[in-house]
Order: sequence, then structure tokens, then C-alpha cells
Amino acid sequence: MWPDTRLCRMLDISHPVIQAPMAGTTTPALAATVSEAGGLGSHGCATLGPGTLRDDIKQLARRTARPVNLNFFCHDERAIDPAHHRRLLDALAPHYAAAGIAPPTGMPEPPFPAFGPAQLEVLLAQPPAVASFHFGLPEAAALAALKAAGCRILASATTVAEARWLADRGADAIIAQGWESGGHRGVFLDVAQDARIGLFALLPQIVDAVEQPVIAAGGIADGRGIAAAFALGAAGVQIGTAFITADEAGPKPLHAEAVRHGADASTRISRAVSGRPARAHRTAWLDDMTQVEPAPFPLMYHYVAPLLAADPETYRFALYGQAAALAPGGTAAERLARLVSDAERVFSGQSHAPG
Amino acid sequence: MWPDTRLCRMLDISHPVIQAPMAGTTTPALAATVSEAGGLGSHGCATLGPGTLRDDIKQLARRTARPVNLNFFCHDERAIDPAHHRRLLDALAPHYAAAGIAPPTGMPEPPFPAFGPAQLEVLLAQPPAVASFHFGLPEAAALAALKAAGCRILASATTVAEARWLADRGADAIIAQGWESGGHRGVFLDVAQDARIGLFALLPQIVDAVEQPVIAAGGIADGRGIAAAFALGAAGVQIGTAFITADEAGPKPLHAEAVRHGADASTRISRAVSGRPARAHRTAWLDDMTQVEPAPFPLMYHYVAPLLAADPETYRFALYGQAAALAPGGTAAERLARLVSDAERVFSGQSHAPG
Repeated sequence: MWPDTRLCRMLDISHPVIQAPMAGTTTPALAATVSEAGGLGSHGCATLGPGTLRDDIKQLARRTARPVNLNFFCHDERAIDPAHHRRLLDALAPHYAAAGIAPPTGMPEPPFPAFGPAQLEVLLAQPPAVASFHFGLPEAAALAALKAAGCRILASATTVAEARWLADRGADAIIAQGWESGGHRGVFLDVAQDARIGLFALLPQIVDAVEQPVIAAGGIADGRGIAAAFALGAAGVQIGTAFITADEAGPKPLHAEAVRHGADASTRISRAVSGRPARAHRTAWLDDMTQVEPAPFPLMYHYVAPLLAADPETYRFALYGQAAALAPGGTAAERLARLVSDAERVFSGQSHAPG
Repeated sequence: MWPDTRLCRMLDISHPVIQAPMAGTTTPALAATVSEAGGLGSHGCATLGPGTLRDDIKQLARRTARPVNLNFFCHDERAIDPAHHRRLLDALAPHYAAAGIAPPTGMPEPPFPAFGPAQLEVLLAQPPAVASFHFGLPEAAALAALKAAGCRILASATTVAEARWLADRGADAIIAQGWESGGHRGVFLDVAQDARIGLFALLPQIVDAVEQPVIAAGGIADGRGIAAAFALGAAGVQIGTAFITADEAGPKPLHAEAVRHGADASTRISRAVSGRPARAHRTAWLDDMTQVEPAPFPLMYHYVAPLLAADPETYRFALYGQAAALAPGGTAAERLARLVSDAERVFSGQSHAPG
């Protein structure tokens, strides 16, 4: 049924549908279920320490022999200068008071590192079929080692320039991440000048710019979106929001609730919680925080994590995309089957309005 | 070839491709050419006085007997308070000095009115086949008069809520305007809280919400985009940027140059020139102006028009969308023919990569 099977052949999957890695929400059970059902399951590993990463890889191996994708972050690690630190504590002081908590103490330490030697060692001991990266790519030697170990490499681009950068450095396929996408924007070449390109415009321009297969991400949560992505030249799709409330995923309760009621206009891009732009459930607090310059990613969590813990509703950081309302229900396997069968109906013209 | 012909039948056109009305850029020659070629040509009439409007309608009638669309603005007309006026003159003082001009004098007068009795009278004397509206709809009596005169009514929505609002008030078809779109965003229910929804997410959610045919707009400039829009449930497309540099259009030279070199990341949304959010060629000046609260639309032109006249490059306001790079070349008729034939190739599967 698929008009383009390059990705299926490259990744050894039946359906070119990738369940997106969503750090903190995906589980080995979710990823394995999607892979067993013929898609590519992904596990968001960016925030896991080496021990948990090793355990999750073992769990995945017990659950499926099919290809699975492990995802990591390649952000620049930056410190915060003391003056900015003090300004942030001042700006957030009314919020700490309102939540009835003390401000965090000490200068921030990153809650997790960028992809580096520790994670590489774990991966090389038991290489996943696919590794994907957000915010750029690992350093050249690490990338070469992963490729030599047989990993296929995917990476996210939010502009044509980023797609070319990734292709030039050895990515096997490019994820074109549209503005619609939930979660962190992968923008990495010029974060301050995010071009905010919608998938309709971004996808075909990346397809025209690189030789590699292109995977469409952002705003796709049903079969119509999958078919549209292929019309625009995609060789596959990456879908996150449509899997958040699947039985096998592990969203926090307020996150699942937000996604279940998610509508076209219920999200916004914000840097308030992590320091990098991410699409999340719109709240009054996120709107207010546009006035505050956040700490470099991921140091901003240091300032906000205590608020999230003390008042999970007011300071909610529920990541999802603009097409939540389109998502199917049920288990992850049921959702994948529904996405595939609905796409097939659109491909064969059955779902169009009567001509 | 079209999988959905509702719009063709409703508007009596061969191809459900609408050349977008772009006030200041469209000409009677452009609109008539597109309509003669089987699409729906549009003329942006929002800024025309009644005399010019009457003349242009006559010109259109001489050039084609096919349906043509005339477009108008239905913005709320608001005054600026004197304190805001003074703040604007202060904020722009360095720019007036740099451009070597005196600041504008007096309180601003709107350079053009919202759609009202004067335009209605002209239209009822020679009703167009189609009238379209941006920023909402005319008052109920005016709309009823246009419909009684045989006009089909189109209107733009940037959210599901706006689509429902337009459908409930009698729009015959809804234009789903994605974030990618060049020119003014049609947002009208809550301009301050623009939800910025990409077409991939917006289009199917509007299709699901209203009974009327839905026209996809924003980020579409080639046959792939047209086919993708139909996969998402559209009954037609509206395409602007791909016609700006057609021989029959009338862009200013710097506008045409910007579109010719337009890339995925070369635009931004700005309120700096008109007062309402519009997608335009990104310039250093537009970036700076995010710090300034603009006057209500369209009074902001009062403050900026002298700068545009004195230094057209620095203060350039070149409206186009995120898919300029995909546009075909040639005359308007050649462009329409190319859009249609490329879409047909995608519909029939010929343009997909080898499976």
C-alpha cells in the first residue's frame, strides 16, 4: 500500500510509521508494542542515566526482536551567568511564594547531560537498530562508532539548512519537524531565530534539498495526515501525540488529561520550563513567562521543577501537538493499525467526499 | 482528476484552485487570466476606493465572463489613544531621523475603511460571482444582500472556532488559512491570542467541524501541496505566493525580488507595518519592531508609510509565504496549468519515488 517503501526497507519495518520518542512519556512497553505491530517504536532516552538506559534496552530486547529506535539529545551544554541566575530567582519569587515553597538553592546543575561517552558505551554494548537525535548530532567519532555497529541514524531538522547539515554529516534519514509538532523543537543551527516553518512548507523543501528519505513530523495524528505527508514527498511519518494516551505509555495524569481534551488552539510554544522552545498545553503561567529570559537548556528545569512538584496544575508542562483532537484511541497496537488502515483508505480514494 | 468536485460545482470553475487575493499586488489582468484558465482569479479590493473598485470590476468584465472573486476586509475599526500615539512617535523617532524625514503629523486616519455601505453599493450594482472576506464577515444585512444578488461567500478561518463562526453566519465555503500563509493572518476572534496553527493540523480539524467545503491556504505552491490538501479533506486550495511574480501581477520591484529569492526561513510574522499580524520578508527592522506595540489596524500604516516611501529597502514590507521556493514560473496561466498538471501527477502516483 505504501507509495514509497525506502524507509521500510532501510529500517526493516512493515509500515513507515514511527512512534515518536517522547522522553518521560515513552516506555519500553510502548516502543516494543509499536515495533511488534509493524511500525517503528521509539523510546525517549535523553533523560535516562546509564543504568536505566541499560535496563530499558534489556527490557526492550525481552519484549521484541523487531527494530526499535532510541532517541537522545545533542544540545550544547551551557552554563548560566550569576546575574541571569539572580534575575530568574527574582522573577520567579512570587511563584515560589504562591506555591508555598522555598526557592531552589545553589547554582543549577544539568538534570541530564547531552549525548556523550556514557550513553555511547551502553549503546555499543547492545546496539539498537535505530538511533535518533534531537538538537543536532553526536560528535563525528561517536556517530561513526554507532554506524559501524549497525545503527541507522535519524535526526530532526526544522529548516532546509538544518536538513542539509544533518545529511552532510551522515544521517541516514531526515525528520522534517513542522511547527505543529508537540514537544521540543529540534531547532539547533540558530535557536534564537527559530523560523517556525509549518510542515506543509517545510516537508517538500527538505525533500527537494536532500537525497535521504524524509520523515514528516508535526500535526499528523490520523490517516489523512499520513497520506498528505506522502503526497508532499515523505517516505515516512513520525507521530507522537497520537500515542501519548495509549495504554502502554506513561504520561502523568494531568498530561494525559490535557491530550484527551487537546484542541487545535490549546497549545503554545514556550521556553519557560526547559529553556528551549517546546510545544505544550497553553497555561496562564506559560503566557506570563514570555516576559522572562529562561536559563540555557536544560538548566531552566532547576528553577521550575520545584514549582511543578508543588503545584502540578498551575505549572503544568504537558507536551503535545496541534493535532491531538485527531488521534485514535485504544492500545498502541490498535492505534497503529487504525493509522495504517485509515491512510490506506485515503491512498485508495475511498475517504474523499463524493465527487 | 479532482477527488472532490464540490467547489468546482459551487463556483462553476474547472479547477478548484483559487489565486489568492493580495491587496496591492493583484490586478484585474491577473484575476481574469486565472479565471480564463479554469481556476478562480481573485482581486484584492480591500484598499480600493469606490471609484477604483467600480473601474476594476468593469475591467474584469471586459476581460472575462468567467467567475471572479473580489476580496474585502472586515476588521474592527479602532482608534488609537493619544498616549499610545505619542509612544509610537517616540519609538520611531530614530527611524524617522535615519530616513531623513519628518515624523507624520496629526492623529492617524485609516487609509481605507472596513467593508461597508460604499463597497456594498458598488458590488450590488454589478455583483461578482464570488466575494471573499478576511478578518470576519460583513454585517448580516450586507451579507444577506450579497447572497440575494447571487454572490457566493468565502471567508478565512485560522482556528476551528473561527470556521464554525463563519459557517454559522452563512459562509458558503471556509478558507482554512494555515500559519505558513503569506500576508495578513485572517485571525479575528481573538487576535491577541493567535493560536498559530499549521495547515497540517488546522485543515482536517476544520473539515471535521463544518459541513461547508473547505479551501486550504498557506504553504501550498506546487502540485504536491495541492494533492496533500485534498488528502487532508480540502475541496480546493487558495494559492497566493506562487502568483506574485507572474507577468500579470503588480508587485513592487523589491517585493518581486524577495519572492524570487524566498526560502523556507526567509519570512516572519510581524505587526509592525499594518498593526495586524502578517507574514512578510524578514528584515532587521521587523525583528526590532517586536519591542513596539503597534497601532490598531490599519492605523499603523500612518506611522510607517513615510518610512516605506523614504527607504523602501530598510523598511520593506514584502508579503509572501513559507513555500515561495516551490512556486512555478511564467505567466499566470502557465503557473495555473503547471499547478494542475503537477497535482494530477501526484494524484495518479507518478511523482512518488520508486517503491
